[in-house]
Amino acid sequence: MFVLVNLKTYPCDPVAIAEAVSDVNERTDARLAVAPQAAHLERVAETGAETWGQHVDPIEHGSNTGHTLAESVADAGAVGTLINHSERREKLADIDGAIRAADRADLETVVCANNPAQIGAAAALEPDAVAVEPPELIGTGTPVSQADPDIVEDAVAAAETVADDVSVLCGAGISTGDDVVAAGELGTEGVLLASGVAKADDPTAALEDLVAPL
Amino acid sequence: MFVLVNLKTYPCDPVAIAEAVSDVNERTDARLAVAPQAAHLERVAETGAETWGQHVDPIEHGSNTGHTLAESVADAGAVGTLINHSERREKLADIDGAIRAADRADLETVVCANNPAQIGAAAALEPDAVAVEPPELIGTGTPVSQADPDIVEDAVAAAETVADDVSVLCGAGISTGDDVVAAGELGTEGVLLASGVAKADDPTAALEDLVAPL
Amino acid sequence: MFVLVNLKTYPCDPVAIAEAVSDVNERTDARLAVAPQAAHLERVAETGAETWGQHVDPIEHGSNTGHTLAESVADAGAVGTLINHSERREKLADIDGAIRAADRADLETVVCANNPAQIGAAAALEPDAVAVEPPELIGTGTPVSQADPDIVEDAVAAAETVADDVSVLCGAGISTGDDVVAAGELGTEGVLLASGVAKADDPTAALEDLVAPL
Amino acid sequence: MFVLVNLKTYPCDPVAIAEAVSDVNERTDARLAVAPQAAHLERVAETGAETWGQHVDPIEHGSNTGHTLAESVADAGAVGTLINHSERREKLADIDGAIRAADRADLETVVCANNPAQIGAAAALEPDAVAVEPPELIGTGTPVSQADPDIVEDAVAAAETVADDVSVLCGAGISTGDDVVAAGELGTEGVLLASGVAKADDPTAALEDLVAPL
Repeated sequence: MFVLVNLKTYPCDPVAIAEAVSDVNERTDARLAVAPQAAHLERVAETGAETWGQHVDPIEHGSNTGHTLAESVADAGAVGTLINHSERREKLADIDGAIRAADRADLETVVCANNPAQIGAAAALEPDAVAVEPPELIGTGTPVSQADPDIVEDAVAAAETVADDVSVLCGAGISTGDDVVAAGELGTEGVLLASGVAKADDPTAALEDLVAPL
Repeated sequence: MFVLVNLKTYPCDPVAIAEAVSDVNERTDARLAVAPQAAHLERVAETGAETWGQHVDPIEHGSNTGHTLAESVADAGAVGTLINHSERREKLADIDGAIRAADRADLETVVCANNPAQIGAAAALEPDAVAVEPPELIGTGTPVSQADPDIVEDAVAAAETVADDVSVLCGAGISTGDDVVAAGELGTEGVLLASGVAKADDPTAALEDLVAPL
Repeated sequence: MFVLVNLKTYPCDPVAIAEAVSDVNERTDARLAVAPQAAHLERVAETGAETWGQHVDPIEHGSNTGHTLAESVADAGAVGTLINHSERREKLADIDGAIRAADRADLETVVCANNPAQIGAAAALEPDAVAVEPPELIGTGTPVSQADPDIVEDAVAAAETVADDVSVLCGAGISTGDDVVAAGELGTEGVLLASGVAKADDPTAALEDLVAPL
Repeated sequence: MFVLVNLKTYPCDPVAIAEAVSDVNERTDARLAVAPQAAHLERVAETGAETWGQHVDPIEHGSNTGHTLAESVADAGAVGTLINHSERREKLADIDGAIRAADRADLETVVCANNPAQIGAAAALEPDAVAVEPPELIGTGTPVSQADPDIVEDAVAAAETVADDVSVLCGAGISTGDDVVAAGELGTEGVLLASGVAKADDPTAALEDLVAPL
């Protein structure tokens, strides 16, 4: 299972969490990664933790003040990027453009979406993975795998119909190892989570709990 | 074949064009319709021409100043609506929401997109139809069916893979009956066009030319 | 005082409310107007009520599918338009462009904004009027003139500093004649309101109450 | 004079340019600074050059995936930020929010705008400075101070009317020391430039030319 910790713009120490990710990653079969803000990418990547961007724009090198260029995200040490997170919803044409930009910069891509229909749409654009995150469950502590297992299974089915080589992740409310196991049993290959680790008093312990049952 | 005439915000007489659409529609096996601006929907629908909206927002009745409500578009006499035209690109989540809003108001839906990957994505959201319109060909007078037939065939294939009951239209540069025939031969069930009719000195003659070879 | 009734996308009968506006307008010194959705402009204007748009885009005639053209809003019978309502926030450059578009089409302009600083900014663009509407009070039934009189007075002062010929209106929570009087005493020349009339069982009675103390 | 070098998403070496900025800054009375992409802020700040962000979002710490937090821009070493560059136009309410966010993080603010009316609007929001950049001149090599001196003088006047403690900069087409001098003679306190330095074969020489006549 892939466990991607999104630090959003939380008031956490991104380096300390990255070190916890790097540390726990060495002691588990799961694959752990961390997605800091763009301004923190370099210092996070320097910890050795697998580092992801939270967003890239559908642009190339050029006159794009204030944008996030895939090449610069990669150059700062990231190996992948989220696209279209529910807190950064994008136009369909721009999701397509952002995937092309990320491909060009050799960044792995996870496109987020709200529901199975949108997951099918995202999968049709051929990112490496899609992630179903019902916005109403984000940050609740109630895992999507328990609150709405159908939405996860339907998302897996929708992605498979459209493009069978696109992985499916799920997110929203994930905070325990049982949630991760349940996500796997519903057919996903990983989870997105945020506050469960980023706001934990002891991120290392939180991560150990998450991967313990795997 | 379905021929949908988009009046955009052209300085044309929407009623005169609607009357031409209504008139020619009675003398052909093709299905003709016209999509005026929201403020012109009523007077266009009163001509008896099949009337479409150019856009609906992903909203319900409520506090949405300055938005386009599907129910109001239907109530003004429209039977369908474009969504995500290249001049009004929308977020993926909002295309999904706009299709649901249109379904609720019994409006037929055509979701536009730039290329085969985005057509597959649009089809996964299950509108009634999708329309491939390469933005670089819009308004050129060079029909997509001639300039880039592969993009049309690939769009038809992409839609079919994802959802085989979603029709495919094409647009951009369509202005003659031969263009419409060519579009049909590439597997589409209709065309979107705009300036070819809306800017014609004689819209009735332009429409007759379009449907003559059908 | 100017009383502008915004119908948003409420499930009301726009013609019935327009008739009430027209009717009450004849029996008061206040100036009453109604702002329906774009698709309802024509039928509302036909009642003889002063009719306003809820929004115009910063565009000219041309290739702008799904946009709201100032000329078409005027052509459908409107004499003015809201711009930048808190439910349709616009880019600074587009507010400027929308005012120019409205000027071109002889539409009167009211630019909405959240707070005194933004009111000053809006006034610098030289619309006919600005309207301060704290978003947190919209639809509450608690009038801004009572909940936060300072914000109204500060908005009047901010507009005056920047451009002394720009009128100031206020909105949010206005529902009684006392609210309108209070708004006038704070230095405004009118009010925006919505649910107080649009959701009233008897819009004529609601309007009569609003203008009774004037 | 303040000379702010915007690196946009150009394919330049941000550290090499920052070193040139730092180097030339020590040998001139002008104040030089450099604005790299967010992902490059740390490595640029480490050179000792005065470092600026290209954009901040109107947010606080919290659930804002893919956004640019003022605190993180400051934490990475920046002392100021551009807001509303013509390549990243923002809603009026969000420009206001971004200035508040930057103030909170002790970042100096320069709000860009297209024309004198928008400059007045931006000044009403009380940033530290505003910058007038006619979009049609950006990247042309024809300096705004020569192509359209009136727009610069009108912008200075507009800002002064609204808020006399807001500095005015100008940009677009600036590439020589004469352009910088001309900008000062028109009443501005600095210039924004980009390609003239970022695409120069020898950034140090380009910067020396810029400040030589000062």
